[in-house]
Amino acid sequence: MSDLPRKVRIVEVGPRDGLQNESRVASREAKVEFIRLLAAAGLQEIEAGSFVRPDRIPQLADSEEVIRSLPQTPGVRYSALVPNMKGLDRAIASGIRRIAVFTAASETFNRKNINMGVAESIDVFRPVVGRALREGLSVRGYASTCFVCPYEGPISKEKVAQVVRALLDLGVDEVSVGDTIGAATPRDVDSTVGHLIAQFPVERLAMHFHDTYGLAVANVYQSLQMGISTFDSSAGGIGGCPYAPGASGNLATEDLLYLLDRLGIETGVSLGALRRASHFMAAQLERDLPSRVLKTTAGERP
Amino acid sequence: MSDLPRKVRIVEVGPRDGLQNESRVASREAKVEFIRLLAAAGLQEIEAGSFVRPDRIPQLADSEEVIRSLPQTPGVRYSALVPNMKGLDRAIASGIRRIAVFTAASETFNRKNINMGVAESIDVFRPVVGRALREGLSVRGYASTCFVCPYEGPISKEKVAQVVRALLDLGVDEVSVGDTIGAATPRDVDSTVGHLIAQFPVERLAMHFHDTYGLAVANVYQSLQMGISTFDSSAGGIGGCPYAPGASGNLATEDLLYLLDRLGIETGVSLGALRRASHFMAAQLERDLPSRVLKTTAGERP
Repeated sequence: MSDLPRKVRIVEVGPRDGLQNESRVASREAKVEFIRLLAAAGLQEIEAGSFVRPDRIPQLADSEEVIRSLPQTPGVRYSALVPNMKGLDRAIASGIRRIAVFTAASETFNRKNINMGVAESIDVFRPVVGRALREGLSVRGYASTCFVCPYEGPISKEKVAQVVRALLDLGVDEVSVGDTIGAATPRDVDSTVGHLIAQFPVERLAMHFHDTYGLAVANVYQSLQMGISTFDSSAGGIGGCPYAPGASGNLATEDLLYLLDRLGIETGVSLGALRRASHFMAAQLERDLPSRVLKTTAGERP
Repeated sequence: MSDLPRKVRIVEVGPRDGLQNESRVASREAKVEFIRLLAAAGLQEIEAGSFVRPDRIPQLADSEEVIRSLPQTPGVRYSALVPNMKGLDRAIASGIRRIAVFTAASETFNRKNINMGVAESIDVFRPVVGRALREGLSVRGYASTCFVCPYEGPISKEKVAQVVRALLDLGVDEVSVGDTIGAATPRDVDSTVGHLIAQFPVERLAMHFHDTYGLAVANVYQSLQMGISTFDSSAGGIGGCPYAPGASGNLATEDLLYLLDRLGIETGVSLGALRRASHFMAAQLERDLPSRVLKTTAGERP
């Protein structure tokens, strides 16, 4: 068994990727308090909002106000999704210092999701990322459907490497490699991530797993064995899967953290404090969240 | 990456281990129909009841009648839990052809659970297993708390090997190695199962994981890589965890099956038909079941 990383960086995507897939819209105050609680739990990377067209994602229409209201905590970095130059204008106006651009490994998924082909999306992002970097912002890239596409089926590792390369060439500092529908097995992770780490520095790769079919934790463990040390997750498992109504979406941060804690891997995050953040947002959304660990009393004390 | 088994045997424990941990008591007719649907889904090993004292587990007080009512389907093997000679009498009277005896790797857990130490339980089982074998029944052994005990904490692999050996020496044909509270990580599985397969034939070992903290699928995958090819699971994830109220208990058969299907491993079980069995029992229990896969529409068609 290979050595596992000593430390893992968790990128908390609940306030963006999570909330945008919830049917209830949390108030601005609730979103700010949620993010404050997440930062207080020790999460140092928090995706706080999105600058897509407000009519497209009403859940995040007030991202600018949310981001302006966030407390500046030393060591905590907030980011926001930016789809184009107009979104970048709004991001810069909000004062955020990190943005993320979003494309996919699947051509069909990209067309249905952001109405552009993969190559076209890279062309749209080039001036956006260029200007963001000149303005001193840092940029993350998302590549979704890197294992299975809900329209095209299995996605080849060569296609994934192509989109990862295109994003890195734009100047993003890391690419989040996503299993959008949660259908990847650890064997698929072994194959695709093995192909990626053979050509890109492992520290440029983050893994973004969905728990639709209960495979996310197994995929994290496989990735850890391969040297991956950055993972995206959503507090409580907030969010769902637009391709499987009622199903789990993002891997829950609690479930990720429990595995890492049990493996003795440092994260700086307190499970007890994280649970309080998730319980707070669960009450706002008036629903039970899917995290396995959140349903237990494990780590009640911070 | 090592070769995975080509075929896996699933031991369905929902009608016993699952139902005994549900607060609602299903009717006899519902239990019989549930087991019939499970067999129709292709499950060939079904734990159908328990012959512990009926006042101890009211959920299964009618196991004798349930077992008498089961249709005899070629290739399907039913079993029942037997704690002592009195239980064996009832098992034989019911006509069942396979029994299971139950002990633990943790001394404290065993005392609290069955009011006997580990060595004492083996002494109680010796004449029971002996008589069962003479009567032509086959016998399975359970060893619970093989990773973490809720009272003692981590359990050494040497202790696990000791109880597995004691059970095999009694004449059981396989031992189900249980992670009773769901706290094992794949690294723990690597260590303990590695220790076991160094001294026992791998085909004598079944793994019994709980999904309390979302780790069960990862632990199955680790076990598959080590050559384990028998897994216990509960349809829909029926049952709970007595040590963590509201939490998930047994690994859901659907979640196990989804992984195996995606890995191309043969089981003979239809996910669509299995979902129907779980939906049937969920309606009887009037609750949502925890299986991730059951919440999706994957494999709707048999």
